[in-house]
Amino acid sequence: MKKESKAKRSIVSMALQVLKQVEKKEPPSLEIPLRTVDNIIFDEKKGHYVLGPKKAIRTSRNVKHLKPLTQLVWVASLARKLIDEDKTSTLRDVFYMAEGVELGFEDQSESDRIITELESVIGSPREDFKIYPEERSAIFADLTIEYTVKGYEGRRINLTSHPDGLMIGPALATSKFVKTSADKVLCIEKGAMFTRFVEEKAWKKYNAILIHTAGQAPRATRRLIRRLNTELDLPVYIFTDADPWGLHIAQVIISGSANAAHVPELATPKARWMGVYASDIEEYKLPSTRLLDVDIKRLNELKKDKRYTKDPWRKEIDKFFEIKKKAEQEAFSKYGLSYMVDVYLKKRLA
Amino acid sequence: MKKESKAKRSIVSMALQVLKQVEKKEPPSLEIPLRTVDNIIFDEKKGHYVLGPKKAIRTSRNVKHLKPLTQLVWVASLARKLIDEDKTSTLRDVFYMAEGVELGFEDQSESDRIITELESVIGSPREDFKIYPEERSAIFADLTIEYTVKGYEGRRINLTSHPDGLMIGPALATSKFVKTSADKVLCIEKGAMFTRFVEEKAWKKYNAILIHTAGQAPRATRRLIRRLNTELDLPVYIFTDADPWGLHIAQVIISGSANAAHVPELATPKARWMGVYASDIEEYKLPSTRLLDVDIKRLNELKKDKRYTKDPWRKEIDKFFEIKKKAEQEAFSKYGLSYMVDVYLKKRLA
Repeated sequence: MKKESKAKRSIVSMALQVLKQVEKKEPPSLEIPLRTVDNIIFDEKKGHYVLGPKKAIRTSRNVKHLKPLTQLVWVASLARKLIDEDKTSTLRDVFYMAEGVELGFEDQSESDRIITELESVIGSPREDFKIYPEERSAIFADLTIEYTVKGYEGRRINLTSHPDGLMIGPALATSKFVKTSADKVLCIEKGAMFTRFVEEKAWKKYNAILIHTAGQAPRATRRLIRRLNTELDLPVYIFTDADPWGLHIAQVIISGSANAAHVPELATPKARWMGVYASDIEEYKLPSTRLLDVDIKRLNELKKDKRYTKDPWRKEIDKFFEIKKKAEQEAFSKYGLSYMVDVYLKKRLA
Repeated sequence: MKKESKAKRSIVSMALQVLKQVEKKEPPSLEIPLRTVDNIIFDEKKGHYVLGPKKAIRTSRNVKHLKPLTQLVWVASLARKLIDEDKTSTLRDVFYMAEGVELGFEDQSESDRIITELESVIGSPREDFKIYPEERSAIFADLTIEYTVKGYEGRRINLTSHPDGLMIGPALATSKFVKTSADKVLCIEKGAMFTRFVEEKAWKKYNAILIHTAGQAPRATRRLIRRLNTELDLPVYIFTDADPWGLHIAQVIISGSANAAHVPELATPKARWMGVYASDIEEYKLPSTRLLDVDIKRLNELKKDKRYTKDPWRKEIDKFFEIKKKAEQEAFSKYGLSYMVDVYLKKRLA
């Protein structure tokens, strides 16, 4: 609840600022951090993207600013209402709610942009004002949590309770960590592999919290990973497919995305990508397919990205170019269903 | 476990048949139900697709049959192993495991086809021999289940335990139903709407088991819906977007897909589609978008499908053609986040 209170305080203080201006008969205006390319900076020391110092003034003196300024204030008031009423919402919902008040949002990309603007003005991710993504990933772990959502306050559950894994939705994302026997976090791209890790008791063998990212990890999941890393001080290891998309799934968990430079709470700079590597395709003779043109194009883009200049990234990107092949996590099934956990994972974590 | 035992018995009896032929020095052969279009019949009385009586003989006398016959026997032996070892697998895993034994599967579509063939020979869906889809949908309900999976035998959980909903994976799909206060099942297409229904306590207000289908319901979910309908005798209502894809999501839950005509356990003929209707777009003045060419094309296909000749299907398809618009479930957010549950749902269930 603390994070929601911080978001609410910032919204109220933003509203008071506008109110004061109105009372003084000044045309209301707000300072908004710029999210243009030249103000999105990769902070080498922090290991993730941050916004630079540039700001824009949005003022009702300028007739062109009037609409976006009004929209921003409306979204802020909606955000406060969502916090007060403890109701979860989505980007899509907000667009439709805006339809009800005729605020002139052209399409959803416009309301999405205003929500992002509110995030950067108040310095809180939108999950703190109850706007959640639709996608859900999952977690399985000997970790006891305590819910903070309405109707469940104080109730506890151990995350081994459901063998299919527990969905990381708004309730789990906002829960408190009570107790765990785990000493590491394993993030896994594919659902099939996650199920395998649960069934093969990888969580027990390696004292690990298992997280299924379901492809690109949703924001709420990235934030949970960061919390496990910072609040519980657990190292985080990421396993993906051996292809350029897998690399980037790992990288976004580690260093965030440029798009979300204004919400650093989503990055886990200390997390490490642990495979499947391009070099594993050779070493383990994994079933593989040829890289497509679109994969090559993506690898060339990654090569230019400064986050990929260190090893293992650089070495593995070069290996991809050399062997021109990619492989999925499930390719290890060639050696039977237990091999990934009993042999590969053991070796990689050693 | 009963369903797995039935699958195992059928596999063993198929294997014994082959073994007997070999012992008698006859070339092994198997009868396989034909899955060609002329053998897939919509059974009006049962309300779903079934396979007709036509069969093909696959015999090792014919050199062209040798490879698929061997593949089928290998998949059957793998299926038995999966049941014995209680390990969950996916279509993709099986393809990779086949790589390990060099059985000449050209690509995954070939191993998928052989798995489907095994389903039709032994008359059990592949979930009964532990091959599950990757997609996961979710459930939230005052329903207590008892697990049957290894390590959790006899353990019970109430499906209100996790406010984000419990994932419908292999463990939940194979659990026993112990106790429920619910008197109906509500299936919901969108995750945002599912979360809304949980938060607004729609499950309590309407004594309902809530199921998130996550778009087209995965097979394990369709089967669970059927079990809730037949074992607990609960009526099933389906809510989707108001577009041709939503119609078909509902229809596949109700009558199955032609593709799965050989596994009738996936259909729930008594389930009913309850909205969002094309006529609701007008009645509730919902925010909507124009039908695209691809939507119109799909509607024309549905119009030709005999399952859509009765109302509400026919009437609503005509309405779509008339208004040329579609709307999402979230469009009801125009009237606030509670409207869908407190007004629309109440009216529709009355």
